[in-house]
Amino acid sequence: MQVIVQKNKLVESVQDVMKAVSSRTTIPILTGIKIVATEEGISLTGSDSDISIESFIPAEENGTIHAEIIEPGSIVLQARFFSDIVRKLPQDKVEMKVENHFLTIIRSGSAEFNLHGLDAEEYPRLPEIEEQNVFKIPSDLLKTLIRQTVFAVSVSETRPILTGVNWRLENGELTCIATDSHRLALRKAKVETNISEAHNVVIPGKSLNELNKILDENDDLVEIVITENQVLFKTKNILFFSRLLDGNYPDTSRLIPLESKTDIILDAKEFLQAIDRASLLAREGRNNVVKLTTLPNGKVEILSNSPEIGKVVEEIHAKNVQGEDLKISFSAKYMIDALKAVEGSEIRISFTGAMRPFLIRVPEDETVLQLILPVRTY
Amino acid sequence: MQVIVQKNKLVESVQDVMKAVSSRTTIPILTGIKIVATEEGISLTGSDSDISIESFIPAEENGTIHAEIIEPGSIVLQARFFSDIVRKLPQDKVEMKVENHFLTIIRSGSAEFNLHGLDAEEYPRLPEIEEQNVFKIPSDLLKTLIRQTVFAVSVSETRPILTGVNWRLENGELTCIATDSHRLALRKAKVETNISEAHNVVIPGKSLNELNKILDENDDLVEIVITENQVLFKTKNILFFSRLLDGNYPDTSRLIPLESKTDIILDAKEFLQAIDRASLLAREGRNNVVKLTTLPNGKVEILSNSPEIGKVVEEIHAKNVQGEDLKISFSAKYMIDALKAVEGSEIRISFTGAMRPFLIRVPEDETVLQLILPVRTY
Repeated sequence: MQVIVQKNKLVESVQDVMKAVSSRTTIPILTGIKIVATEEGISLTGSDSDISIESFIPAEENGTIHAEIIEPGSIVLQARFFSDIVRKLPQDKVEMKVENHFLTIIRSGSAEFNLHGLDAEEYPRLPEIEEQNVFKIPSDLLKTLIRQTVFAVSVSETRPILTGVNWRLENGELTCIATDSHRLALRKAKVETNISEAHNVVIPGKSLNELNKILDENDDLVEIVITENQVLFKTKNILFFSRLLDGNYPDTSRLIPLESKTDIILDAKEFLQAIDRASLLAREGRNNVVKLTTLPNGKVEILSNSPEIGKVVEEIHAKNVQGEDLKISFSAKYMIDALKAVEGSEIRISFTGAMRPFLIRVPEDETVLQLILPVRTY
Repeated sequence: MQVIVQKNKLVESVQDVMKAVSSRTTIPILTGIKIVATEEGISLTGSDSDISIESFIPAEENGTIHAEIIEPGSIVLQARFFSDIVRKLPQDKVEMKVENHFLTIIRSGSAEFNLHGLDAEEYPRLPEIEEQNVFKIPSDLLKTLIRQTVFAVSVSETRPILTGVNWRLENGELTCIATDSHRLALRKAKVETNISEAHNVVIPGKSLNELNKILDENDDLVEIVITENQVLFKTKNILFFSRLLDGNYPDTSRLIPLESKTDIILDAKEFLQAIDRASLLAREGRNNVVKLTTLPNGKVEILSNSPEIGKVVEEIHAKNVQGEDLKISFSAKYMIDALKAVEGSEIRISFTGAMRPFLIRVPEDETVLQLILPVRTY
């Protein structure tokens, strides 16, 4: 293999595939990045066997030359060193040449690195995916879907299926659901698809977090292919593979109350800041609990009490309070997460009693919903 | 105590004194911030008994009202909570009022915090310092003095005196020296002083690092008062006390070679980047060693070799090479630290043989000097 490649393109691709490379792996070759040069360009691959990322640098794109392929070939180089080296090379152009025994010369300006590489034939193959079940989502919408749900996955391995986000595709609508059994996040979106059959899969939260970091904030369509045990996200130059979680995702539809007894509309930012302040003392307690009480004057009181430190109380103006009076306690952290996720300037909270799950939504927006289970304190 | 104070002033002062507050302390009250309100204004104090910082908010400054003192008094509040609370208060004005049993009300807008305080009488007194031996340095120069020396202090407690920076004041000149016995940093500066006698003290590196964070990058004069076991730095509204280290600092003057056998002048940035690249592989070895060799063509070769990973070699153009040919090995980290400290666009390195300490200086600048001991590899 011998190539000359633009440094900035190489740095970008290495950064992308590094998101899949783990230093803690039982398969030593996966601490490396696989580099394959063909006449079309250079592809880089990183994998931790759960996530695999392939980033492609086309030799030529829209008339711009990114890489010159002098001799096609392949090599695996230690990811950690290779990524540091590439970033710190002195010139805009980088020459890479594989010599005998996988010794690889990396040259830029007057700097010359010799790295011991590994045989690319030893690198595990990426899953082969038949592109039958394809649907498409704009990149920025996909990022929003992830951001609005993935934070609610379980961090505990006691029910592994809850560490993933449930994706259901039916009648051209995608529904994403995450829950750790104390709160739930749901987001729906229309998608472009030729798939007639319904799909119901669970994608590891970690995979979605890494995917979110790689995706650009633009409306280019991302192609998504679902198979029995893998999902593939395709952008112009990136293939992102993730394994799916085994098992059945619980039916969460029963959890979501259909009626409400108390409805409050609040300014989202003002409410978030009040909860954040209350949480300063609440987080000292075991469970970061704050109390919300509706007041007769149309206001809402937020209170938190930590006997050893002190207490904080704040009255905030509600835009509207309807229904029964209410006193309820909940986790400040869950509320903060939910408020950050819904992304509205106003929010509606619908309660059905102090012991029942309640909903946080944006008025007039049916696509996003956050649910929190209250904490028993009275 | 009852005061109304501008939030931004309070936030700034709390941030300053927090730099002295440690959560790991054997004296529980030192996890708090002492607040004292007098007619002149409000003073805040934080301390870990090694460092004490007092920040003063004048009631009025240049016609601007920063604080209204309704009732003078004092209190100690838990530093961690108080600093978080103050930052997150909703309005520009903050009211603080101490009630019975040191219960303290903090009010801003509709938010009200009740914090359990402690008796300020229990808080340790700051050292009383007689202002006899005073000298003055502009704030930005003081920051430079610190930055150019403090990184070279020892991080090991085997010789505690080397964890500090030696400050010598004689004939209106201050000399700051730090060494960990493998490298040495020295910086001289003229100071404004009325002191006739010589001073020779050792200031803990940690204290100087914290002081550097508090000082502004301007040319306001900082007053420095040295006593037998304390040093005090005074700016307009801050008093920064540090204890001094006990013991005699070693005489380092013998270490510094007076002659040189090989003199090289290099572009500082180019050389730094080459060393940085060589260090990518060198740091995998035990001691992060790179080799420098003078070449017949007026160039300098930088090489590092890590048998398991690979090697890197780079030739850089020297602006001037004089004297004997040389092959020498040294720590890449020490060289990088030294190059960052000298702050010149060109640097001169003076060697007196492969086994002798060598000097890094800026040509035509006698105030700053870095010394590194080579590593034996041949």
